[in-house]
Amino acid sequence: MNARSPAQNAELALLLEVTGTPKPGNVDRHREYDDLRFEHFMAGAVGSTPGLALAQKGAAVGRAFERCIAGMAEQSAGNTQFGALLLLVPLVQAASTHDDGLSSESASEVVGSTTVEDACDFYRAFEHVSVAVDDPPSELDALDVRQGTRAASTLRERELTLMDVMELSAEIDGVAREWTQGFPRSFGAADWIEESEGPIAERAADAFLRLLSEEPDTFIVKQHDVATAAEASERAQRARTGETDPDVLAEEFIQQDINPGTTADLTAAALFIALERGLSV
Amino acid sequence: MNARSPAQNAELALLLEVTGTPKPGNVDRHREYDDLRFEHFMAGAVGSTPGLALAQKGAAVGRAFERCIAGMAEQSAGNTQFGALLLLVPLVQAASTHDDGLSSESASEVVGSTTVEDACDFYRAFEHVSVAVDDPPSELDALDVRQGTRAASTLRERELTLMDVMELSAEIDGVAREWTQGFPRSFGAADWIEESEGPIAERAADAFLRLLSEEPDTFIVKQHDVATAAEASERAQRARTGETDPDVLAEEFIQQDINPGTTADLTAAALFIALERGLSV
Repeated sequence: MNARSPAQNAELALLLEVTGTPKPGNVDRHREYDDLRFEHFMAGAVGSTPGLALAQKGAAVGRAFERCIAGMAEQSAGNTQFGALLLLVPLVQAASTHDDGLSSESASEVVGSTTVEDACDFYRAFEHVSVAVDDPPSELDALDVRQGTRAASTLRERELTLMDVMELSAEIDGVAREWTQGFPRSFGAADWIEESEGPIAERAADAFLRLLSEEPDTFIVKQHDVATAAEASERAQRARTGETDPDVLAEEFIQQDINPGTTADLTAAALFIALERGLSV
Repeated sequence: MNARSPAQNAELALLLEVTGTPKPGNVDRHREYDDLRFEHFMAGAVGSTPGLALAQKGAAVGRAFERCIAGMAEQSAGNTQFGALLLLVPLVQAASTHDDGLSSESASEVVGSTTVEDACDFYRAFEHVSVAVDDPPSELDALDVRQGTRAASTLRERELTLMDVMELSAEIDGVAREWTQGFPRSFGAADWIEESEGPIAERAADAFLRLLSEEPDTFIVKQHDVATAAEASERAQRARTGETDPDVLAEEFIQQDINPGTTADLTAAALFIALERGLSV
């Protein structure tokens, strides 16, 4: 029955991710912000499809990603799915171009083969949208992503591939860490989604909470600090065990501006992997 | 800013339609049935995209529609957006292939040019999915859509184009009526959506209620009878004027199994037209 292409499954993963509720601190089907609404995520997902189709055809990862972001940004709320697409693009490529299909190994091979040009295109993607980032250490100023295309000369001079760039931020960014470690959390959460039962959106919401409870969200670290992120994970754990009502936690996180965005990105990647393995909606 | 293609806007229209809430009697972001969930509409929309892309490239209307339905049906809930796609396919084609762009005239030209082969492909689409229909008058038995591909010989013998088939059901089917009259309600509701303000999903929900209040829903007629449909429109009118709470009406319709599906189809078509005219999300 499943005749969706990898690019279609990636779009569907983005849609199912935001459909899952409650996902404390994130936009979901029942919660949104005035300037970041559910409908912006719909438009972001639809806009990313030409880029996802490029990834499926085996285009360079950086180029496909930059096209995803250009299309995603065609709505008024800015960044909706930047991190999720950074995970999905290499996964789509691994699923569609590798003889052995999608696996941690094939995904690692895709990201390990990225080039300096991929890195330049990755920086170009930041020109389409404002993404929350920390100031880099001063020796890396020239590689601040906010440099956009101006970073190209530095990237070429130092011969940094996109994988090298991800290695530079792996410590502080949960998405980059997936790139450098074979996407372990994405594949792990895909297992949970496949092993559980019921509506997919509910399984995704549970995977989100479990991911968050297991590791601090690096986006919360960027927005707030390490202590807030660690505490958010403990609160997620209490919501999982039933000590707290997840819906109450969702309201609290919104009030406290705690937004586990990286965990949402991982959830989208996990949904994609599960769909590719045959999860039926 | 709007660089989405007509096929992308059509998919986004499907997603925004189901996002709008409350849409009394229909699945929306806050209401779903156990066996027909919000996520099935996400998968239905994603699945329809290869067919929508065919419509955009100028493929035959019947063929593009049949591909839309084959893809839409790749989820476990069956029919999610059959009627909406029957409106969207000719509209996408008019938007992408007509020099003057999308209008009631160009859409009428597209449907007026359909052939007997389009009619055969339309019947083929019913093989992918179970669609609620009435028994046809006995002289039309051979053209009962439940005949699927078996109707082809009759269609060829009588030289019936897809437009002819729509004319045969225009009286009892609100989607077919749009085909034969230049899509007046779709274009009219697009005006309302464009003229109003606020989140697109809310404008869509209001357009839905207004469409329903103005004319009985032919899907309710099929499921129940003319009186129930007329009464549903009166109740929708009371919800529009504030006499009834739309959320209460939504609960009542669900309990009474009143499902204004054709009105939802028209809302999706209206959203597409508004997006094509530049409505920004």
